[in-house]
Amino acid sequence: MKAFMDKDFLLQSDTAKKLYHDYAERMPVLDYHCHLVPKEIAEDIHFKNITELWLGADHYKWRVMRSNGVDERYITGDAPDAEKFHEFAKALPRCIGNPMYHWCHLELQRYFGIYETLSEKNWKKIYDTCNEILQRPEMSAKQLIKMSNVTLVCTTDDPVDDLRYHEMIAEDKKFRVQVLPAWRPDLVMCPEKEGFTDYIKKLSEVSGVKVKDFKTLKKALVSRLDYFAERGCCVSDHGLDYAEFRMVSEKEMEALTKRSIAGETLSLEELLQYKSMVMLFLGAEYKKRDWVMQLHYGARRENNDIVFESAGANAGIDCINPNGFQADVADFMNELNKNGNLPKTIIYSLNPTDNALIGTMIGCFQGDGVRGKIQQGAAWWFNDHKYGMEEHMNSLASLGLLGNFIGMLTDSRSFISYPRHEYFRRIFCNYVGNLVENGEYPEDYEQLGRIVRDVSYYNAVNYFGFRL
Amino acid sequence: MKAFMDKDFLLQSDTAKKLYHDYAERMPVLDYHCHLVPKEIAEDIHFKNITELWLGADHYKWRVMRSNGVDERYITGDAPDAEKFHEFAKALPRCIGNPMYHWCHLELQRYFGIYETLSEKNWKKIYDTCNEILQRPEMSAKQLIKMSNVTLVCTTDDPVDDLRYHEMIAEDKKFRVQVLPAWRPDLVMCPEKEGFTDYIKKLSEVSGVKVKDFKTLKKALVSRLDYFAERGCCVSDHGLDYAEFRMVSEKEMEALTKRSIAGETLSLEELLQYKSMVMLFLGAEYKKRDWVMQLHYGARRENNDIVFESAGANAGIDCINPNGFQADVADFMNELNKNGNLPKTIIYSLNPTDNALIGTMIGCFQGDGVRGKIQQGAAWWFNDHKYGMEEHMNSLASLGLLGNFIGMLTDSRSFISYPRHEYFRRIFCNYVGNLVENGEYPEDYEQLGRIVRDVSYYNAVNYFGFRL
Amino acid sequence: MKAFMDKDFLLQSDTAKKLYHDYAERMPVLDYHCHLVPKEIAEDIHFKNITELWLGADHYKWRVMRSNGVDERYITGDAPDAEKFHEFAKALPRCIGNPMYHWCHLELQRYFGIYETLSEKNWKKIYDTCNEILQRPEMSAKQLIKMSNVTLVCTTDDPVDDLRYHEMIAEDKKFRVQVLPAWRPDLVMCPEKEGFTDYIKKLSEVSGVKVKDFKTLKKALVSRLDYFAERGCCVSDHGLDYAEFRMVSEKEMEALTKRSIAGETLSLEELLQYKSMVMLFLGAEYKKRDWVMQLHYGARRENNDIVFESAGANAGIDCINPNGFQADVADFMNELNKNGNLPKTIIYSLNPTDNALIGTMIGCFQGDGVRGKIQQGAAWWFNDHKYGMEEHMNSLASLGLLGNFIGMLTDSRSFISYPRHEYFRRIFCNYVGNLVENGEYPEDYEQLGRIVRDVSYYNAVNYFGFRL
Repeated sequence: MKAFMDKDFLLQSDTAKKLYHDYAERMPVLDYHCHLVPKEIAEDIHFKNITELWLGADHYKWRVMRSNGVDERYITGDAPDAEKFHEFAKALPRCIGNPMYHWCHLELQRYFGIYETLSEKNWKKIYDTCNEILQRPEMSAKQLIKMSNVTLVCTTDDPVDDLRYHEMIAEDKKFRVQVLPAWRPDLVMCPEKEGFTDYIKKLSEVSGVKVKDFKTLKKALVSRLDYFAERGCCVSDHGLDYAEFRMVSEKEMEALTKRSIAGETLSLEELLQYKSMVMLFLGAEYKKRDWVMQLHYGARRENNDIVFESAGANAGIDCINPNGFQADVADFMNELNKNGNLPKTIIYSLNPTDNALIGTMIGCFQGDGVRGKIQQGAAWWFNDHKYGMEEHMNSLASLGLLGNFIGMLTDSRSFISYPRHEYFRRIFCNYVGNLVENGEYPEDYEQLGRIVRDVSYYNAVNYFGFRL
Repeated sequence: MKAFMDKDFLLQSDTAKKLYHDYAERMPVLDYHCHLVPKEIAEDIHFKNITELWLGADHYKWRVMRSNGVDERYITGDAPDAEKFHEFAKALPRCIGNPMYHWCHLELQRYFGIYETLSEKNWKKIYDTCNEILQRPEMSAKQLIKMSNVTLVCTTDDPVDDLRYHEMIAEDKKFRVQVLPAWRPDLVMCPEKEGFTDYIKKLSEVSGVKVKDFKTLKKALVSRLDYFAERGCCVSDHGLDYAEFRMVSEKEMEALTKRSIAGETLSLEELLQYKSMVMLFLGAEYKKRDWVMQLHYGARRENNDIVFESAGANAGIDCINPNGFQADVADFMNELNKNGNLPKTIIYSLNPTDNALIGTMIGCFQGDGVRGKIQQGAAWWFNDHKYGMEEHMNSLASLGLLGNFIGMLTDSRSFISYPRHEYFRRIFCNYVGNLVENGEYPEDYEQLGRIVRDVSYYNAVNYFGFRL
Repeated sequence: MKAFMDKDFLLQSDTAKKLYHDYAERMPVLDYHCHLVPKEIAEDIHFKNITELWLGADHYKWRVMRSNGVDERYITGDAPDAEKFHEFAKALPRCIGNPMYHWCHLELQRYFGIYETLSEKNWKKIYDTCNEILQRPEMSAKQLIKMSNVTLVCTTDDPVDDLRYHEMIAEDKKFRVQVLPAWRPDLVMCPEKEGFTDYIKKLSEVSGVKVKDFKTLKKALVSRLDYFAERGCCVSDHGLDYAEFRMVSEKEMEALTKRSIAGETLSLEELLQYKSMVMLFLGAEYKKRDWVMQLHYGARRENNDIVFESAGANAGIDCINPNGFQADVADFMNELNKNGNLPKTIIYSLNPTDNALIGTMIGCFQGDGVRGKIQQGAAWWFNDHKYGMEEHMNSLASLGLLGNFIGMLTDSRSFISYPRHEYFRRIFCNYVGNLVENGEYPEDYEQLGRIVRDVSYYNAVNYFGFRL
């Protein structure tokens, strides 16, 4: 029996241990996609207590508590912090086999030096210890990032954002971690959302281009793309409800855009056309700038009105949209590609049953002098666990070149979620180790070491073209 | 090499063995969903021979025989019983890796003391031995249930049923196993089926409410719900062809219902509306009574006309409906929930590729003071095998709180199918044991033992609120 | 640790080793579905060099190279052969966990006696050695097939083909391997394709039946079916874009066929009707002749216009069509079956998430005196790897009779792809071995040996009815 979560956690063979400890463990972390709040980094915030840090915004943990029957008051409500933590501690031991169990204990080990397992029995002691440690200077936002061996972070930012906090962070010469913006223009894609016309006004303001049709919309976006690029951005990101692709003429798109800006309601078909045409435009712009295009498909959001009304967006009431990823994505990529406009692209689907579909589809658009130009992104959100990662690795390996995978990201709002990289690397080294142990790949540490270091770090550095 | 199907069957580690033998093995069985015939229990029937017991109604076994090329005469036809058993014995050794292989041999071991494996070589000897044993008094329906350590059984009953056999069973004071009705109103949901108008007449009769519109339909159903509740029912069950959800106004529903009762044909869209509105009504009624709502999605039934004509319904000619479970189920649950009407709910889909979708969806509606209020039901029908159960457990664990799972049921028409609970428990203990052996959960038998006993028995007892 | 790809490659237990070496290894190969070019066999061609043999037409390898960022010039372009091989050698070590890694090294071992692993370091030496060996007389097309212990090959042929090369091959009395045609009438099914009317003309010519409506189309096809049957054909094959099934009357079909032949464009609905009716007709004809009907569903072809324009069809730019297999296939089989017209049928879907759906569907149509009359074909194309095969075996075993599986085929255009049978057998023996090692099947080598030999060879022989 292996000891519980010791230094060889998840490493089931000697090869896996060697690969992890000799090649992966000390690699820096490149977090190319996360939801950290730039203001919180810039202000180098501290956390009041472990409840604020763990339960303040983490919808994964909220789901755990709800699944244990905990009243919403102790989750997103006004119960005292200690009681919230107590409720969470009661739920955690039921999470057997859940990544939450491992993430929490990795965080307790790595940031708080606590090697006990949290439960109802010791919750108060752990609560007090964590809170005491959180007051220390080294537990500030920036110090936590540094301590985690991170070299670069890409946040997630709206095109209208002035990126002032990124500038503030860059000016702190003692903080050598690059914190770059990433371009996430979700609102501009969604005329069906309430704030759309206001958003267009805001975009007009910040770009200095009066947006009144597709032509001016493009001009305004180009201005903001340039603004972002000047501040180091080289990654975009899209959360997409539809994978369907509909081409229309520039003229028809002009009409659709005007109607959208005027606040008219588009039909579903027209929406698909509008979105498709904006995506085609942006894809080509990314290609021009050598940016990476990230496409996140398949989330069905805010399914529970009651929780949404009390707790707002990102409250843990999302699920998979089973039709979120479709074969149409191939048509979208083809359309970009045939005009020389297909940028480096990372595709994520929330539905793990899309693994094979994505794996076969990306294989149709590879080449162009870039190793793994089209990537299937790391197992995302609900798939970000041992089982999901292993399925993902099996799919990547079976259908493409696992050695060219750009690896892990945190996708997190937390300053102490970096152990997810450790978690991923352990699972990856174990996966590769098994192949070697089974005689499916030679025990050649030159090749193996290169693959492990590449997937842990260097592939992402080279793929995005970061200067580090 | 492990011995074939000995006491440590399916238990691959010492931890698994300990968990099973010390915690799971002696737990009673709570069979909260099955298709036993109440009349057969009430009359405490005996079986003529092993062919009647095994091959009389078991469409799983019929499929095995058909897959081996056996002529229908030996399956549902009039061939002599011994020859039917002979044909089955020839097919069984080809079922390597199939749960049928294990279920049959578990049944031979547990009820007949036979530890040989059945094949063409020994079929006659086993046939004779079984038939001899089946004549013994302890092989009656009630005795088989008792011998299987069952404390409670929920059958599957139509709202118009008078439940007289449940009363007969309850009156037998020597038989201490609770046999409760479960409410399965499939016909009332299906105006498209031939017997609908007759069914409505029957419902009017037994309820004493003349059903002529939605209002009276609801009144009649309430009367029957109360009738069932008085007889101990606290579980409902629905076999649903559509997961789509369409709201209409009460007025429109009145019109739809009237037309249905008049024998008019509804359009597909109207059918969806009718079904959705009946489900909304019933869901709220279940919630009022603190009943559990079971939803079975995704069966495509009676695919083979020839077999259907000769052998009727439930003849082993069903398959997965790949679109049987849809994201609309979230809208249905949301609609109930926002009005405070969402009962405890168990979702089953016949399509194993829905595991992740269901796992993420149920997470949106948890809470309300109930541990695991919304459950993904045990791996159902075609998924009720080692591989399917392990996939199911992986999904439950990765996406929620495995410790809150209400566990196994038989879903069977057979009095000797209880070893499926044993099968499940062995697989569950092995699954949990592996987590411990791999250092993914601490070797803490207080927590582990609680989880194993809960999933084997107590979670279901508490969830349904049975008094035992 | 197991040695890399030695004689016990992929055999993880003693039982697996015994099953493979004692029962599977020396079984002949029956390749009932491949894409070998009859002319190349008839002419007993030699290969100029390893680049021509490996990289001349193998889109699997082209995908590997593209995924490694290799320029198309070194893939399907005019770069020198040595440089192409060099680029491939650079990519191969990144293919960790990919079947390409194993297939290549199995081919190097079995046909060239090379036990090194190919990489940038030794590519030139291996290139030269292979090329030298390829000049030897025993490296001709026919000798390669013989050396691979193949008894029978079914190629893939168009109904208008005169099969002259099959006759030439049959006339070579020194070459005792049967090379039979297989009937693949894809074009006749596709009025939407450009060459359709020309194709109908060609069909009229070769059949001597002037095709002008459905009646004459059927007559012409019957003539060709007989022509193929006379030359030993007993297998058909269909590549199907749609799994949807629409019946129309013979009269409507007459109209559709006339319009198709006249070059009119059918609506999507009409196309489905046309295809369904042709399939119904052909299915019945196969049944009459006791042929096997192979149905390949779910490929979405030629997704990348740029590569298609430069490299043509089958250039590695295909992916899964996620809606390629549908429940309608059950209606199609039912329609055939209820008229006594359902032939032995093998269903393949490119989407591995269809495994359970197919497994449950085929169970509805078994029987008719044939063991495993309806088969789920071997893990196809993108699923033809260890992980895909294991998932496939898990599904076959859990849902049906694994012992009745007709096993592997190459589906290949290469004369040295036969190690894929070895690969399959090793994985199969390992799978079965695990069941025995885990106590899930008795260590009874009479039964086990029969199952292994049957799945390796005899099931296919008996199923197709080949005379060997």
